[in-house]
Amino acid sequence: MDTHPLRTISAPASIGFVGASGNPANMGTMQLLNLLYSGYPGKVFPVHPRDREIYGLQTYERISDLPEAPEMFMLVVPTRLIPEMVADFARLGTRRGVIVTAGFKETGATGAALEARLAELARREEIRFLGPNCMGLINTRCPLNLTAAPFKGRCGGLSLISQSGTYITQTVEYLRTRGIALNLAFSVGNEATIDLVDCLEYLGQDPDTQAIGMYIECIRRPGRFLEVARRIDKPMVAQYVGGTAAGARSGASHTGALAGPDHVYDGLLAQAGVIRVDSIEAVYQAGHTLASQPVPRGPRIAVLTNSGGPGTAMASRLDAGGMEVPELSEALQEKIQGYLPGHASVRNPVDLTFHTDMTQIAETLPRILMEAEEIDGLLIHGIMDTGWAEMSFPVFEKFFGATLEDIRRMLNVDLDTLVRLPAALGKPLLISSFFGREDNALCTFQEHGIPTFDGPEKAAAAMTLLWRWARIQRSRRPLAAPGTLPAAATAQMAVLGETVDEFEAKQVLAACGIPTVNERRVETEDEAVAAARRIGFPVALKGCSADVLHKTEAGLVHLGLTGEDAVVTAARAVKERMPGARLLVSEMLDSRREVIAGVSRPPGFPPCVLFGMGGVMAEALEDRVVRLTPLDSGDALEMMDALRGRRVLGAWRGMPAVDREALADLLVRLGRLAASFPRLKEIDLNPILFVDGRPKVADALFVV
Amino acid sequence: MDTHPLRTISAPASIGFVGASGNPANMGTMQLLNLLYSGYPGKVFPVHPRDREIYGLQTYERISDLPEAPEMFMLVVPTRLIPEMVADFARLGTRRGVIVTAGFKETGATGAALEARLAELARREEIRFLGPNCMGLINTRCPLNLTAAPFKGRCGGLSLISQSGTYITQTVEYLRTRGIALNLAFSVGNEATIDLVDCLEYLGQDPDTQAIGMYIECIRRPGRFLEVARRIDKPMVAQYVGGTAAGARSGASHTGALAGPDHVYDGLLAQAGVIRVDSIEAVYQAGHTLASQPVPRGPRIAVLTNSGGPGTAMASRLDAGGMEVPELSEALQEKIQGYLPGHASVRNPVDLTFHTDMTQIAETLPRILMEAEEIDGLLIHGIMDTGWAEMSFPVFEKFFGATLEDIRRMLNVDLDTLVRLPAALGKPLLISSFFGREDNALCTFQEHGIPTFDGPEKAAAAMTLLWRWARIQRSRRPLAAPGTLPAAATAQMAVLGETVDEFEAKQVLAACGIPTVNERRVETEDEAVAAARRIGFPVALKGCSADVLHKTEAGLVHLGLTGEDAVVTAARAVKERMPGARLLVSEMLDSRREVIAGVSRPPGFPPCVLFGMGGVMAEALEDRVVRLTPLDSGDALEMMDALRGRRVLGAWRGMPAVDREALADLLVRLGRLAASFPRLKEIDLNPILFVDGRPKVADALFVV
Repeated sequence: MDTHPLRTISAPASIGFVGASGNPANMGTMQLLNLLYSGYPGKVFPVHPRDREIYGLQTYERISDLPEAPEMFMLVVPTRLIPEMVADFARLGTRRGVIVTAGFKETGATGAALEARLAELARREEIRFLGPNCMGLINTRCPLNLTAAPFKGRCGGLSLISQSGTYITQTVEYLRTRGIALNLAFSVGNEATIDLVDCLEYLGQDPDTQAIGMYIECIRRPGRFLEVARRIDKPMVAQYVGGTAAGARSGASHTGALAGPDHVYDGLLAQAGVIRVDSIEAVYQAGHTLASQPVPRGPRIAVLTNSGGPGTAMASRLDAGGMEVPELSEALQEKIQGYLPGHASVRNPVDLTFHTDMTQIAETLPRILMEAEEIDGLLIHGIMDTGWAEMSFPVFEKFFGATLEDIRRMLNVDLDTLVRLPAALGKPLLISSFFGREDNALCTFQEHGIPTFDGPEKAAAAMTLLWRWARIQRSRRPLAAPGTLPAAATAQMAVLGETVDEFEAKQVLAACGIPTVNERRVETEDEAVAAARRIGFPVALKGCSADVLHKTEAGLVHLGLTGEDAVVTAARAVKERMPGARLLVSEMLDSRREVIAGVSRPPGFPPCVLFGMGGVMAEALEDRVVRLTPLDSGDALEMMDALRGRRVLGAWRGMPAVDREALADLLVRLGRLAASFPRLKEIDLNPILFVDGRPKVADALFVV
Repeated sequence: MDTHPLRTISAPASIGFVGASGNPANMGTMQLLNLLYSGYPGKVFPVHPRDREIYGLQTYERISDLPEAPEMFMLVVPTRLIPEMVADFARLGTRRGVIVTAGFKETGATGAALEARLAELARREEIRFLGPNCMGLINTRCPLNLTAAPFKGRCGGLSLISQSGTYITQTVEYLRTRGIALNLAFSVGNEATIDLVDCLEYLGQDPDTQAIGMYIECIRRPGRFLEVARRIDKPMVAQYVGGTAAGARSGASHTGALAGPDHVYDGLLAQAGVIRVDSIEAVYQAGHTLASQPVPRGPRIAVLTNSGGPGTAMASRLDAGGMEVPELSEALQEKIQGYLPGHASVRNPVDLTFHTDMTQIAETLPRILMEAEEIDGLLIHGIMDTGWAEMSFPVFEKFFGATLEDIRRMLNVDLDTLVRLPAALGKPLLISSFFGREDNALCTFQEHGIPTFDGPEKAAAAMTLLWRWARIQRSRRPLAAPGTLPAAATAQMAVLGETVDEFEAKQVLAACGIPTVNERRVETEDEAVAAARRIGFPVALKGCSADVLHKTEAGLVHLGLTGEDAVVTAARAVKERMPGARLLVSEMLDSRREVIAGVSRPPGFPPCVLFGMGGVMAEALEDRVVRLTPLDSGDALEMMDALRGRRVLGAWRGMPAVDREALADLLVRLGRLAASFPRLKEIDLNPILFVDGRPKVADALFVV
């Protein structure tokens, strides 16, 4: 940890700064000014070709003139100057830095070549830097702000990794007004020598980081990302935007990112235990919530409101998100009944109906609800203070000659107890309010790290993410070891030729310990009949070939053959269509429940295992889940649970429940097969059928 | 329209007001004060038992003392007083009103009885009122504000109908700071005499309403809602929250609403052409966008940004929402190239990269992009003015001694041309910005009715809703006439007994003109063989009974019988399991593609037609769509397009495309059958198979 390059970069003792001048419209100048304004406690050495002083700092003509080797360099200069300046700093002994300058691989081939040269220099000289084409970083605790926006916010527990500089620059005010406080924020740019995964690894160990938020256009090292993320016991939340054609094209010209298919990223993030959200607002708000609130011990949430609409919307969203809004026990209802007006509902949501006296909603009831053993967390909508007062002030001024102070006194909300309840009771509290920071109550919540949301659905959604994290955390474990296959698998692989037919593929699977259908490969009609007799009727008969991909459409599949004559007829039909073909005779399995599994190799990724619903109809719905290898039995079970149609794996239409462990074992072995033999470009097990709930591969295709 | 009760209620010439006093903490008082503060131009007659003057208005001791019959009453008094007061106003001649008072059907049986009495009185005296248990209304043009929050906003084109008073009261400031301007807003409460549908009908005809937003916990007259909505050629957007258990319970204690299943509401809203959203923020923002921006003529959107992250996020969301972010033509790229800095991307998104000079992003480029024939609408992120200036001011003050005015002058954004482009060119423009109203540019956009969003994804999502509305509008047509069935259907229904078996059900379907499988019902083995010979092998043989629901599980279904022996064996097996059963012999159809259709009757709804994917596997995915009767062929085609697995209806796995018209005709006839014969409680056509793409009902179940 001490040697992690981001340790120096996020809190260097000194910075050599090239690219600031007396011109405040210049990006480098803005960044230097914000660095100084942030209160950075270290030394700053500006380099400038002409000026000998800027902003009270002595400047140096050349990098080689610096009086000492700064711990870090910061470069905001024309692209072509970058490699030489990095070399200059290296000669001085500076090996950590930030390169803001753009014009590298995001602009095309010439830029990419320049970046490759830069990376090679860095490798040779053991230099690590953020960027190029990045916006720097913010460390609220150092404090250190290298971005173009002033930052003087509170310190928080949320750290950010962003593939867009904007999300740590243009949003400074946005975050402040929403009460979202940061710890560290990295803009990673083109990731030449430090990528998102390095940042993740660093933040995973950083003691002040309580949660990690990510804006992702591309993960350049997905396998390593998975490995690192699985070791981090902190909530992680991410937005991935590269999964559509337009998103991918935009990302490429932004940071030279090569995005991947959305469903593969979806699988990667799920497997990594990273909660995926679909907007930057959700990254910030979910991240802040996860960084600041206790994890609910269970799914039972109380909703307290001054209005039915927001109460219903919150209850509905909690319900849809897998939490519960339980009707309160009679004892608890009795306890709170006395504090409520006549028309109020006490069942949950507890709805006080509209009023301006804040005593019950902000003082009495939250405590009772949060202290109740039957409740795991609380959502409140309707606490309002100066926001309401200021809104109503013109009316009172007009009709009563009241002053703003008079009105503010009318609404006197005491939140001292409430803001301390989450920490004291270990239960989360989230606030929904339509007011902004003109409302003192809202400000008080924000300053005490109680997340506030400008809509009831958002507060409820954040609560469901806390619960999601609680469940992820419970099943947290390091990534599986690669695992080994039986020696027989290697032997079987060794005898494969240039092409692999269905029978040979199944031989390999069987050698891996993957159950396959009982089957024989024969040459003649007579052998087919003999095989059928041995297997027992009814049987299936197929043409066996490495060349035909769609056997059914080619008329090479004959199912449900009940007698010897049928076998002969089918064998002839196959031979007629494909003279010289060998024949596969296999047992007939119940095909009402079909699943599929497979292996693909998306560029840059470890081999991926796919699992999904099978059958002609279900396949149109593309209910499929992907995980990266190595995957363990837990990952495989999560794949089953992630299917929309997962209930088909339970007892279904008179069929017994699927043996989940056996199916998980099949998927784990399939992953090992893919990881062990890169020669297998693609594997397609379709369908996998079930006998007494136990899976058997009925058809297999290897692309070599 | 002139006689619509809401015409008077939304702009009465005079109001008799009971429930205000000298105490400003009292709800009625707050409402009276806000009424007066709103600048309401009509006469107000307060009634008060003791005071003879409040707020400069003469008051009257009793309703009967009023000097004239006000056009409308407003009641904010204890529940028990309501019926008598309504009667008093009726005696005076006042037949329109608003009842704010709660304590009616939302509180249980006693309240419900009181509300029934009130409704009966209203019916007898031809009185119509909003409420009870509502928050009143806002009419920004009258102006008239009966809510508890002061309203002095701009007039806009968005009108609201809300089953929560909060959404027109607590959100007044929320809407103002987001630039969302209203026209009319109704809080409907318990809907005793005026419901959401009445409001919708009124707003559909109101010339100042450009779009309608709805917050819905329950639609009390779904059939009428559909009829009314289908005649409205204005964008409508709605949130429905009653579809979960917790949501439904909360709604019941809120407005006594009886919510319905989510998928039925989903179908109703889609059929009505109402865009469903999932948060109140989206109701406001989508409603405002739809009310203020031109409809895009096509899906091709240009994205202009000062930062790659928001650009990528917008492109990605547009893409996912069915729009296009086309790479700009070479001619257009050349045209804009000259205005861009070196590292900028011109392909679309057009990314200027970070800078503080607003000339290109706010003046030059938007015009070029919006004028281009190849572009149908524009999204911009990154225009900033005083927001950025004020954020950066402390830095410049510290290092340059600059004043805020100096800084503001630095950023001088001229938006005069830009804000006029949407109207001038008939193309939508939406703005994403992380700044709030501290930013002058944002304020300028808002004041010119250009929607602004505090996140790129939200702006992009709003654009996709504009496109959605464009497509809804193109297919706009009134609700279908009920339609008639062939006379044979009635005759066939007449001969049905107490129970209906599969054969009889299919006879009815056939009489309705719904194609069914070629089939014979026989008694004996010999007859079965004869039938099979007539039909042609292979055949299916089933036991025919009105009692057995799951024939397959009961062993009563034998498929793919290829010869006479097989028919005899199957017939014996059926007879053995169900002695005395009749036998159904039918042609075997290709069952690889299966769909299902059915009829259900959710309480309070017209009969609903369901359509979905069939088959043991696909059914686990519940890919199903519901529409209300009467449905026309267009509705039926939309059902097919709404399936997630819709591509199975095209050419699929060697099968020809489904004959969509024939399938639509089947669904329309099924709807007519359900509407004509309430006796049929439930209909289940499962499966429907296809011969050369044409549907045939293979199994049918009637519950009578």
